[in-house]
Amino acid sequence: MDLWHICRLVCLMTQIYFDHNATTKVDDAVLDRMLPYFREYYGNASSSHSVGLAARRAIDRAREQVAQAVGVQPAQVIFTSGGSEANNLFIRGVSDSLKPSVLAVSTIEHPCIMRPARGLTRKNGEKWQLHYLAVDAAGRVKVNDAVDVLTATRSAMVSMMLANNETGVIQEVAPVAEVARAQGAWMHTDAVQAFGKIPVNFTELGVHALTLSAHKIYGPKGAAALIIDPRLPVRPLIDGGGHENGLRSGTENVPAIVGFGAACELAMSRMAESSVKTAMLRDRLEHGLLAMGATVFGLNAPRLPNTCYFALPDIEGDTLVVRLDKKGFSVASGAACSSATPGKSHVLEAMNVPPIVARCAVRVSLGMDNTMAEVDSFLAAVKHITDELKNMSALFNV
Amino acid sequence: MDLWHICRLVCLMTQIYFDHNATTKVDDAVLDRMLPYFREYYGNASSSHSVGLAARRAIDRAREQVAQAVGVQPAQVIFTSGGSEANNLFIRGVSDSLKPSVLAVSTIEHPCIMRPARGLTRKNGEKWQLHYLAVDAAGRVKVNDAVDVLTATRSAMVSMMLANNETGVIQEVAPVAEVARAQGAWMHTDAVQAFGKIPVNFTELGVHALTLSAHKIYGPKGAAALIIDPRLPVRPLIDGGGHENGLRSGTENVPAIVGFGAACELAMSRMAESSVKTAMLRDRLEHGLLAMGATVFGLNAPRLPNTCYFALPDIEGDTLVVRLDKKGFSVASGAACSSATPGKSHVLEAMNVPPIVARCAVRVSLGMDNTMAEVDSFLAAVKHITDELKNMSALFNV
Repeated sequence: MDLWHICRLVCLMTQIYFDHNATTKVDDAVLDRMLPYFREYYGNASSSHSVGLAARRAIDRAREQVAQAVGVQPAQVIFTSGGSEANNLFIRGVSDSLKPSVLAVSTIEHPCIMRPARGLTRKNGEKWQLHYLAVDAAGRVKVNDAVDVLTATRSAMVSMMLANNETGVIQEVAPVAEVARAQGAWMHTDAVQAFGKIPVNFTELGVHALTLSAHKIYGPKGAAALIIDPRLPVRPLIDGGGHENGLRSGTENVPAIVGFGAACELAMSRMAESSVKTAMLRDRLEHGLLAMGATVFGLNAPRLPNTCYFALPDIEGDTLVVRLDKKGFSVASGAACSSATPGKSHVLEAMNVPPIVARCAVRVSLGMDNTMAEVDSFLAAVKHITDELKNMSALFNV
Repeated sequence: MDLWHICRLVCLMTQIYFDHNATTKVDDAVLDRMLPYFREYYGNASSSHSVGLAARRAIDRAREQVAQAVGVQPAQVIFTSGGSEANNLFIRGVSDSLKPSVLAVSTIEHPCIMRPARGLTRKNGEKWQLHYLAVDAAGRVKVNDAVDVLTATRSAMVSMMLANNETGVIQEVAPVAEVARAQGAWMHTDAVQAFGKIPVNFTELGVHALTLSAHKIYGPKGAAALIIDPRLPVRPLIDGGGHENGLRSGTENVPAIVGFGAACELAMSRMAESSVKTAMLRDRLEHGLLAMGATVFGLNAPRLPNTCYFALPDIEGDTLVVRLDKKGFSVASGAACSSATPGKSHVLEAMNVPPIVARCAVRVSLGMDNTMAEVDSFLAAVKHITDELKNMSALFNV
C-alpha cells in the first residue's frame, strides 16, 4: 500500500459512520465465516463432486439460519442478490402469475417496489391498476384507510413496508395483512430496514412474502432473500439452471450467502442489546437537535431505535451533509436515502411535509459501534456548522 | 476450527480440481483487492459522503478494467449479479422494449438464455416466435443455415454463445452478427465461457450485447456484466433506485465488482500463457482418453484450450464422476454441466449424439494451476475405474 492509500484509509477509518440504514460494515465474525468460501470451499454448489457438495452444505446451513431468524422453514427462503431483486421478484414474479387486476402499495415504499409497481400499469396488453395506501403526518400508513382501499378496489396484491428507510417509522403490517388475506390478496412486506433492529416474525405478520437483506445487518452486499408462503404463485425474474427451487437461477454466491446466514445469527443474538444502546444514543441526539430548533420527522410514531430523521430550519440538507462529511461524520440527506439518482424525498412528500422543510432533511442512522461521545461531538459539529451558515447568510442579507 | 473441519478442509484441498468451467477459486491477488471493501471501504456507493465516494471510485475503476478487457467504453458496462442475470436482462429487457416479433437462439445456449427465450413465446397477449439455429455434429452453429433462418424469419433478436460451456466449441459469432445487424436485429453473445480463455473483443464480434462473468475467471461469484451498444433498447429486469444508469437497480456489490475488475486485469495479463499451458494438458489428456477408446465431442472443431468433453464406451458419466470424486478428482458429468436440476445434455442432443453415448459424457475443464502429473494420475484413475467397472459387468454377465 502506498502513502496515498494509507492516508485515505486513515481518513476513512476515523470517519464517524452514522449511515447504517444505507449499509453496514461486514462484522469481523461474519467475514471470518465467509473467507474459506473464496479459496478453499470455492465449488459451484450445483456440482455433484465433493468440492461442490461442500458449497451446497454451506448454503443449506445459511438457509436454516435465515429461516430461523424470521420463524419459517428453510424451504421458504429464496436467496437473491439483494433486497431490490427480492422486491422486484415479488411485484413482477407474482403479477406475472396472475390475471391483471389491482395492486396496492403504500406511498412510502422504496423505489424498488414503487417503480416495478408503476411498471405494471404501463404494460402492453392488459394492465394492472395501482392504488396507494396513504400515510399520516408522522409517516404511518393509515390502517383504516388502507383497509378501505383494499376492500373497495378488491386488490389482489399488496405491498407495505415494515419500517421506512428514511424515517424509521414502523408500520402496522399485521392488521392490513389480515384484511388482505381475508379477501384472497397476496400480501408482501419489505422488512429490509426493520430486520435486525426489531423482531420480525413471518407468521405473526401474516404476510405471504417478506424481503430481507444481508448488508443492512453487518452482512455482505450481494445476498438477500424473499421469504415466501409455499402457496404464493410466483414466476422467476431470472430463469435458467433452476436454482432456488426454480425461482431464482444463477450460480449461488456462496460466500455472500454464508455471510448472510452468519449475520442473521449475529443479529438475533445481539438485537436486544443493540436496540437499547442505539435508542439511548438516538434519544440523546434528538434531545440536542430539538434544542437547536430541529423538526424530527415521525417523532411520536413507533420508530426503529437507530434512526433519526430531522431538519434544521433554513439549513439545506445537502449542504449539512457535505459540511458534516468534512468534519468527519457520514450521514445521509433526505434526497439520497433510497436512490442512486437523488431528487426530493417521496416519503416526506407523502407525509405532507412542506418542501421548504423537506429540503432540510438529514438522516442519522446509528449502529452497534457508535458511542455517546460520537453523538456529542456530532451535536457540537452541527451547532458549529449551523452558526457558521447563519452568520454567512446574515452577512449576505446586510 | 475443530478436527472434523480440518479433516474436511485437508480432503478438499488435496482434491484435484478439473471443473473450471463450473467455477474457479478466487485468485489470491483478486481476493486481496476485494478485502478492504468489506470492512474499511464498506460504504454504499450511492451515499454522497466520503465513505460512499470511496466505494463509488472503486466501482468506477472496476468498470474501466472490465471495459478495457473487451475493448469498450466504461459506460457500456452494466454490472449484474451473475451471468444468468445478464443473459436474462438481454432476453427479457430487450424484448420488453420491442413489439413482439421473432427471436432466434442457437440450440446449444445455456438454460439462462433458453428458458427466458421460451418464456417469451408463452406470454399473455402478443407473443414472440422462437426459432433455433442448429449445430453440426461437432457442436458448431451452421452459419449458412443460421443466416437463412435469420433472413427468412426476419428475426429482431438473436442470441448465440461464443463458446459452449459443455464442449468448449467456439462459435462463429461475427458472420452471424453481421447479417443480424444488416437486417436491424439486436445481436447478443454469451461470452461467459470464452472470456479469459480466448480473446473477446466487442467491436470485432459486431454484437450489440455481450455477457461476461467474474467467477469463471478466478474472480468472485456475485459479479458479472452485460456489455451493451449504447443504442440497444433495454428495460431493467430489476428496477428501483436507478443504479447502473437506470438499467440495474440495487446497492452495488462493491467487493465483488472490485474483484471482477481485478480478475479481468489478471485474465488479460496471463491469457496467452494459460492458453498454451491448458492446451498442452488437454492434448495429453485427450491422447490418453482416445487410446482408451473414448469419443471426444467436438474434437476437430476450434475449441477452448481448457475443455475436454468425452465419453468412454459403456461407462455411465454420472458413475464415472462419482468414482473419480472418491479418487480425488473433481469433474462434471454431461448432465450437470449447466443446471441445478440435472437431466440429459441438450447440447449433445443438439449435436445428434446417440443417447447411449450421451449418457457417458464427462467434462474435464482445466485451469491455470493444473499440472501434467495431475493429468497423468487422472488418466491412471480413469483406466483403473473403467477396468473395475468392466470386470464387474463381466461378472454380472457370466
